[in-house]
Amino acid sequence: MSGRITLALDAMGGDHGPSVVVPAAFSFLDKRDDVDLILVGDEAVLESQLGHTGARHAGRVRIHHASQVVAMDELPSQALRGKKDSSMRVAINLVKQGEAQACVSAGNTGALMATARFVLKTLPGIDRPAIICPIPAVGGHTHMLDLGANADCTAEHLLQFGVMGSALAAAIHDISNPKVGLLNIGEEEIKGTETVRDASQLLQESRLNYIGYVEGNDIFSGKVDVVVSEGFVGNVSLKTMEGVAKMIGTYIREEFNRNWFTRLLGLVALPVLRSLKRRTDPRRYNGASFVGLQGIVIKSHGGADEVAFENAIRIAALEVEKDVPARISRLMANEVNEGQGV
Amino acid sequence: MSGRITLALDAMGGDHGPSVVVPAAFSFLDKRDDVDLILVGDEAVLESQLGHTGARHAGRVRIHHASQVVAMDELPSQALRGKKDSSMRVAINLVKQGEAQACVSAGNTGALMATARFVLKTLPGIDRPAIICPIPAVGGHTHMLDLGANADCTAEHLLQFGVMGSALAAAIHDISNPKVGLLNIGEEEIKGTETVRDASQLLQESRLNYIGYVEGNDIFSGKVDVVVSEGFVGNVSLKTMEGVAKMIGTYIREEFNRNWFTRLLGLVALPVLRSLKRRTDPRRYNGASFVGLQGIVIKSHGGADEVAFENAIRIAALEVEKDVPARISRLMANEVNEGQGV
Repeated sequence: MSGRITLALDAMGGDHGPSVVVPAAFSFLDKRDDVDLILVGDEAVLESQLGHTGARHAGRVRIHHASQVVAMDELPSQALRGKKDSSMRVAINLVKQGEAQACVSAGNTGALMATARFVLKTLPGIDRPAIICPIPAVGGHTHMLDLGANADCTAEHLLQFGVMGSALAAAIHDISNPKVGLLNIGEEEIKGTETVRDASQLLQESRLNYIGYVEGNDIFSGKVDVVVSEGFVGNVSLKTMEGVAKMIGTYIREEFNRNWFTRLLGLVALPVLRSLKRRTDPRRYNGASFVGLQGIVIKSHGGADEVAFENAIRIAALEVEKDVPARISRLMANEVNEGQGV
Repeated sequence: MSGRITLALDAMGGDHGPSVVVPAAFSFLDKRDDVDLILVGDEAVLESQLGHTGARHAGRVRIHHASQVVAMDELPSQALRGKKDSSMRVAINLVKQGEAQACVSAGNTGALMATARFVLKTLPGIDRPAIICPIPAVGGHTHMLDLGANADCTAEHLLQFGVMGSALAAAIHDISNPKVGLLNIGEEEIKGTETVRDASQLLQESRLNYIGYVEGNDIFSGKVDVVVSEGFVGNVSLKTMEGVAKMIGTYIREEFNRNWFTRLLGLVALPVLRSLKRRTDPRRYNGASFVGLQGIVIKSHGGADEVAFENAIRIAALEVEKDVPARISRLMANEVNEGQGV
């Protein structure tokens, strides 16, 4: 895809709303002159937030009014029925109407998924959209899905996740046959559930580059490009990563704060510690993709700061450039033909 | 429990067999003069491994011959039927017969669980044994179960896991009402499976100190003493922890090896890095307990070295001292009475 890209940002979503979204938007516009942004939300609030800085990017950023905001703890069904003019809903509508090619929101995950699914619909052959995210791994990244949209999955759903993950990883990293692994546990005879075993069979028969079962530690080993799992397990695994990384960060701080000598060492080692912090900075990984929809929707962490939210915008633009939904459609059609013996 | 403790060690199990188990045993005997050890395995092999060092602990260590060894990749059902004189089976038999109060094995997890369950049987009120392990957390440890013995669980099983985890955490840490959390994912409406919701209800009605749902990152936050989960999720979470910790370790090494200056910093900061390494050393956490059995069985990691295996022996002795199975029985009986309105 070439030409200009237009992205719709839910400017009211997340814990911080426009105070994070607007500066992140401007910072992104500074770096990319091929992208235009639509800030969706309360016009008065956004006008004041933009202030005179808006002038700098005249013509490349505009406000689209939406009168409602979905609360972070609102039930998805409630948001779907009662918040038809929410900033989240209107941003998704802009994608549906073709005014924007993707949208980004830091709002309520459940509501965003329900609304995106209702407005955009799933791609042909896809029963359920999934949440996918890059995870740091030795030598690069692993893409893991589903990260929490689907708690009960059939083997067919897991196969579809494999297709979606493969299409996305191929698009984002320009690789031709991403290695797909199915998350399982290691013990024989108590190995996995029936669903996982059936899914492994389906993946084996598919045209994907399926390498078999992987375990939790393989996510980071670089041996696989896509890790497929149902959403409950995927979400627990993702949250476990966050928890471990945070705890080790605490340990490092504690060790360097133990006494005046270690504090001195910490000062001297600052360049190394900074570099380490940069590599493990979760903000660099902010931005999960909802895949399997007829449109691109990126979910930012609710507590994202400017740096993190800007990364989610970057991912949205990248998925537009790579035309991820079309690639998923093609790969899915390929599988269906295979299934019919064509 | 007072008096002498006797532990049976499967001396042939694990990737390294007697070359790890025997030195670990001696190192442990050096530290604890209230413990006797039985080394179970091939007499000739063990005699030669013991050599003259055995004399140092005369009377406190003896060999019990077993003619077979369960392979690390052997099917549990095969081991159960065909290896009736395996070092693993004989070590468990010694517990059954009261000759030892606990056994430790680094062998095949599935075979060890199947054999332990067959020989020792579960405690009254417990349908399935579970695997539990301490996890480092802010301010101490969290005990998490099940870590892979049970891939399909009912709500009742999860309640039983809560009881077992609570009894073990209370015993090991001398706390009276361990906080029990149920592992779940965070989104509303797609929150968990029916089983998890039902289990939450049962835990709420129990006499346990149930604090409600926790997410993957809460395992390390110190807000909970016991995390309950079905075995598939628990195993993935545990393996995820291992993977992240290893990757961050790699990052730290890479950052300090970047150039001569950072290598110099690494040398200067060595005391801090060593201390950090010690705190995150997985060997300090080696030794998972099989709970819910009429006897104490500790599973060491298959690849454990001497330090790690010795830690598993230490855990076995601790659970004997604290009489963990009896405490689980009492807590379970308490729940059953509660259920009957007593």
